Amino acid sequence: MAADFDHIKQKLKQFAHDREWDNYHSPKNIAMALTVEAAELQEIFQWMTEEESLRLNKQKLQAVKHEIADVFLYLLTISRVLDIDILEAAAEKLALNEIKYPLDKARGNAKKYTEL
Amino acid sequence: MAADFDHIKQKLKQFAHDREWDNYHSPKNIAMALTVEAAELQEIFQWMTEEESLRLNKQKLQAVKHEIADVFLYLLTISRVLDIDILEAAAEKLALNEIKYPLDKARGNAKKYTEL
Amino acid sequence: MAADFDHIKQKLKQFAHDREWDNYHSPKNIAMALTVEAAELQEIFQWMTEEESLRLNKQKLQAVKHEIADVFLYLLTISRVLDIDILEAAAEKLALNEIKYPLDKARGNAKKYTEL
Amino acid sequence: MAADFDHIKQKLKQFAHDREWDNYHSPKNIAMALTVEAAELQEIFQWMTEEESLRLNKQKLQAVKHEIADVFLYLLTISRVLDIDILEAAAEKLALNEIKYPLDKARGNAKKYTEL
Repeated sequence: MAADFDHIKQKLKQFAHDREWDNYHSPKNIAMALTVEAAELQEIFQWMTEEESLRLNKQKLQAVKHEIADVFLYLLTISRVLDIDILEAAAEKLALNEIKYPLDKARGNAKKYTEL
Repeated sequence: MAADFDHIKQKLKQFAHDREWDNYHSPKNIAMALTVEAAELQEIFQWMTEEESLRLNKQKLQAVKHEIADVFLYLLTISRVLDIDILEAAAEKLALNEIKYPLDKARGNAKKYTEL
Repeated sequence: MAADFDHIKQKLKQFAHDREWDNYHSPKNIAMALTVEAAELQEIFQWMTEEESLRLNKQKLQAVKHEIADVFLYLLTISRVLDIDILEAAAEKLALNEIKYPLDKARGNAKKYTEL
Repeated sequence: MAADFDHIKQKLKQFAHDREWDNYHSPKNIAMALTVEAAELQEIFQWMTEEESLRLNKQKLQAVKHEIADVFLYLLTISRVLDIDILEAAAEKLALNEIKYPLDKARGNAKKYTEL
């Protein structure tokens, strides 16, 4: 299946446009929908142990894949509506995280940077 | 800033690996962290009107950009840990959505597909 | 329907105990389930305008009522497991909020206290 | 500290009224704020093991207590705005859950009722 980043962004834009959903797609509403999808992803794991969450059966893995896609599609939508370049945002945040979580303090340690 | 999709995935993997965070990164835990970041994104908008959410000042827009990046980075992380191709997942879900939300029923209508 | 606070806490405890769910009910897991229910509550409102969210039809109001109950039951569960008195916690937080949001600054203003 | 259920509801109502926050308090907005608080509660546990989440130090326990209170206060607020009796809602849901999760099927099993 063709799965190029720019192609997906373009198809997604067309999809919402064709359905005249732009009116519903205020950043506030999309952010709500995005959290709901994130919670649906999380729900799959909530009664599993951490170990179980690593070895999903085929059906659960497929469900996870769909929920990841849902979160991703809303993430692309809110980025488009607010004219944010998501790849640039990610690169910028990664650079910031390298400062916030210096190797010598963060290694083997999942504390929040404010607690380091 | 260089911001190529594969480059970001590679840097992110290295970032977690260098900090020996792989032990914390069970899918269950990453899914939790992802929802938390989605909620932080949503929090920016919660007392705004929909209209206000469309015209953010520079400071709010920057905050949104960072939260979008945080969600995206966890989305890439959970995809990596579970060996899911996020672009393929998105393409597959878009194709499904075209069936679930047919143009003639979904146009101008944000009802969930089960209510159409 | 009998609906006394202590009676509900007691029945809920018995319900989980009878089903031998105590093993699943780590605070971590309950917190996850609680967020999922909160997201389900939110989902009902996500494509509504604020005005629409105030005048729900009977069916939506019933759905909201069930989701509110789900969040509440998990809130009572996590409080029980961690031996927290939820009414005392609420009274304490209300007292703190009176300090954090002084009348002269907070009136007609939904800014977070850190921004006041 | 006085911590009677009806007293808290009354104080909370007065608190919002004094600050003229009723305009911000559409059910849509409160539901968003409630999810954000649920996520903040969850965040405390996200990198802990389930075992660690059961034996919190004093500081973490206090943080949990505050977040539980925040969720609870928003739950009371949305119930008030929509004129829902939260105790009745909980009693009703508990009765429904006894049907959805019959003892013989649900014992020792955290599967969702649709999977039982």
